Amino acid sequence: MERAKFLLEEKDMPTRWYNIQADLPVPLPPYLHPGTKQPIGPADLAPLFAMELIKQEVSQERYIDIPEEVQEVYRLWRPTILHRAYRLEKALDTPAKIYYKYEGTSPPGSHKPNTAVAQAYYNKKEGIKRISTETGAGQWGSSLAFACNLFGIECKVYMVRISYNQKPYRRIMMETWGATCVPSPSPDTKAGRDMLAKDPDCPGSLGLAISEAVEDAVSRDDTHYSLGSVLNHVLMHQTIIGQEAMKQMEMAGDYPDIIVGCIGGGSNFAGMYLPFVKDKILGKKPNLRVINVEPESCPTVTKGLYAYDYGDVAGMAPIAKMFTLGHGFIPPPVHAGGLRYHGMAPIICHLHKLGFVEAQAVPQMATFEAGITFARAEGIISAPETNHAIRVTIDEALKCKKEGKSKVILLAHSGHGHFDMAAYEAYLSGKLQDYAYPEDMVKAALKELPEVSAEYK
Amino acid sequence: MERAKFLLEEKDMPTRWYNIQADLPVPLPPYLHPGTKQPIGPADLAPLFAMELIKQEVSQERYIDIPEEVQEVYRLWRPTILHRAYRLEKALDTPAKIYYKYEGTSPPGSHKPNTAVAQAYYNKKEGIKRISTETGAGQWGSSLAFACNLFGIECKVYMVRISYNQKPYRRIMMETWGATCVPSPSPDTKAGRDMLAKDPDCPGSLGLAISEAVEDAVSRDDTHYSLGSVLNHVLMHQTIIGQEAMKQMEMAGDYPDIIVGCIGGGSNFAGMYLPFVKDKILGKKPNLRVINVEPESCPTVTKGLYAYDYGDVAGMAPIAKMFTLGHGFIPPPVHAGGLRYHGMAPIICHLHKLGFVEAQAVPQMATFEAGITFARAEGIISAPETNHAIRVTIDEALKCKKEGKSKVILLAHSGHGHFDMAAYEAYLSGKLQDYAYPEDMVKAALKELPEVSAEYK
Repeated sequence: MERAKFLLEEKDMPTRWYNIQADLPVPLPPYLHPGTKQPIGPADLAPLFAMELIKQEVSQERYIDIPEEVQEVYRLWRPTILHRAYRLEKALDTPAKIYYKYEGTSPPGSHKPNTAVAQAYYNKKEGIKRISTETGAGQWGSSLAFACNLFGIECKVYMVRISYNQKPYRRIMMETWGATCVPSPSPDTKAGRDMLAKDPDCPGSLGLAISEAVEDAVSRDDTHYSLGSVLNHVLMHQTIIGQEAMKQMEMAGDYPDIIVGCIGGGSNFAGMYLPFVKDKILGKKPNLRVINVEPESCPTVTKGLYAYDYGDVAGMAPIAKMFTLGHGFIPPPVHAGGLRYHGMAPIICHLHKLGFVEAQAVPQMATFEAGITFARAEGIISAPETNHAIRVTIDEALKCKKEGKSKVILLAHSGHGHFDMAAYEAYLSGKLQDYAYPEDMVKAALKELPEVSAEYK
Repeated sequence: MERAKFLLEEKDMPTRWYNIQADLPVPLPPYLHPGTKQPIGPADLAPLFAMELIKQEVSQERYIDIPEEVQEVYRLWRPTILHRAYRLEKALDTPAKIYYKYEGTSPPGSHKPNTAVAQAYYNKKEGIKRISTETGAGQWGSSLAFACNLFGIECKVYMVRISYNQKPYRRIMMETWGATCVPSPSPDTKAGRDMLAKDPDCPGSLGLAISEAVEDAVSRDDTHYSLGSVLNHVLMHQTIIGQEAMKQMEMAGDYPDIIVGCIGGGSNFAGMYLPFVKDKILGKKPNLRVINVEPESCPTVTKGLYAYDYGDVAGMAPIAKMFTLGHGFIPPPVHAGGLRYHGMAPIICHLHKLGFVEAQAVPQMATFEAGITFARAEGIISAPETNHAIRVTIDEALKCKKEGKSKVILLAHSGHGHFDMAAYEAYLSGKLQDYAYPEDMVKAALKELPEVSAEYK
């Protein structure tokens, strides 16, 4: 009997998050204030985030304890399973050994609650009664709704209007968990009202939804704001994935030659690879390859500029040093909504600049082809975002076949596609298309980067 | 730390199905031929089913080995997890201990593939190239599509037209796994064409879809038919659930006082309880209570007649002794499509008549109220069918609270509700309703039972 799954008991679940900042050979560049363009301090962030999260954002401690209350929630679905993809290997006829760590068994169906639960907990502890956030396709909004419900916090989600109308199921999921979800632009904020006055039929955008959620939070004493990716503390909360995977790979008697995952803001995949990259930074695994996969139509790391830029369209969020396509860039409407972001987690960008990780961009059609292959071999119908990682996993496995090498590939599988079946339908019926990289739009957007002083260039 | 999940390693997965027929104090009444009204033989069933499945249907062996090829597929998601519902217990403030065995982590999202995989395997082994079936809401069709894909069998699903139009996601799931799914009535069969000639806009019914699938199978040498519930061999394939649960309850150091599950055709819940009911039959657990839960609007066991009736509307299927509301009865359109069946698995009916199990009917609104409570406590958004079982689980837990008793309740959780969010929306927006038991319709339908000779009455 071949062992197809590697389980961890709850007692073996990691009890600390891993903070890569303790092991970086060069420290991260600081965030800058969007107004003053000077390094930002805790007081600047206090209206938005719980103080413990602000501390975690800049902490240099290698490990931070996961509070028991958060562990208790994690145990509803964690530790997640590490699968050996025997059927996929067989379908590809490859000598490669493919493993995947599957985050789709969480109630909202992805990795997102790993940080949503932690953020809700710290806010609750600091007396916050209400959290606002934005969501595009709804993965993040539903995860925060799930988390807030468990800690008795009110949750208000501004969902990009076009998604709100096209994907009602994610909204109903949020409501099932007791959250309020409104289409953005909404009449509930000044930013929303201004836009509605200009264009009552505005389909909305993630940038605008962020502006609404931030305005909501700063205008109310009982409310904080929550972000589902990009920030250091968010990536750190996700390291529970990679720490579990390390234990499970050890059970399997293997260590990955290649780790593959998709990046939008970057939290899921960084959560997987940061504990492994530590081995590379420390010189223990110099040959480990980490491949960040992004859409060809939104190729932040592969084609973007490494520069200081705003995290949001309106320029209200802190300025971060990152690969960016320009904060005004609106990516083409690929189905992988979670990968449509102009920037990238500063930690990922920093590691890329230091040469510890690499990046690759893939076209949409090829990702769905890979997703279908995976579904027919392993059963799981994956999220369109995950299909990007599956594409490169399959490509690397086929390279192994060509070269007759039995490499160990570890895939970060971020979630299922149960709410993305319309995208599969489009692919299966021949209605899906690739989008060329909109080079001119990016060029224009990159002209609008904020001016920062020479020391931050 | 409280242990919330009880895991089994793959090596502890049961390798045999349990066949209750070996332990029945009184044997099951025979199936009768729809034409001759005499006991049916293997030759009558051969055009429809693989010979191994026909043998299993009447086998008196206590255990039947699960083929290694089937085990290998089971291991994609099995063993499934047994959860202790600490958060639900706390939300209800009950001294009861609530456990639930969750089948929603299978690729199609329910227990259905436990038998779909076995059926596809035996058909493949006997040289069958194609399988036809019907599906209502799509749970069964997608599970058979998943299973056929893994064994390289063509799969044709006749999906009730109204569901085909209203619930496209399940159809796309089938197509993702390579199956063909057509709305029924379809122009592909005589039964379908006759109906379309009469009524081109016919919304279809499960009974008609069965007729199409059966006609498809009998008219082609390379094709067999497959049924997702009701039959003895189907229930037996599902006993992997209960056998796993027994091991896991032992790990938890508990034995259930009450087992609760929902019944439509009955395969999921029987799969859970048959291994436990064995203990009751053998006198080891005389006080074990097994509660079969059904919709108040389709109360087959609680209000039906125990008599020989057809399994399908058209009267083509074998006649079985069971509780029935009449094969012509069309249940009201409750969202729990999987529970809208006029009959019931003969094994469940037999055990009920012998006094080993009981039944209870619940109204739709109360089931969704329970489903919301469960989702907010345990995270999982459950299928509308499962919500019926959750309703009674909560009721029993609240009874425990009133009586100050700490009973052990085991809930058979058959699957998630990711493709049923429209039903949650209807509930949350106040648009859901209860349906009265349509007593007059049942009375009329019960007048149409087949005439059988006195010895079978």
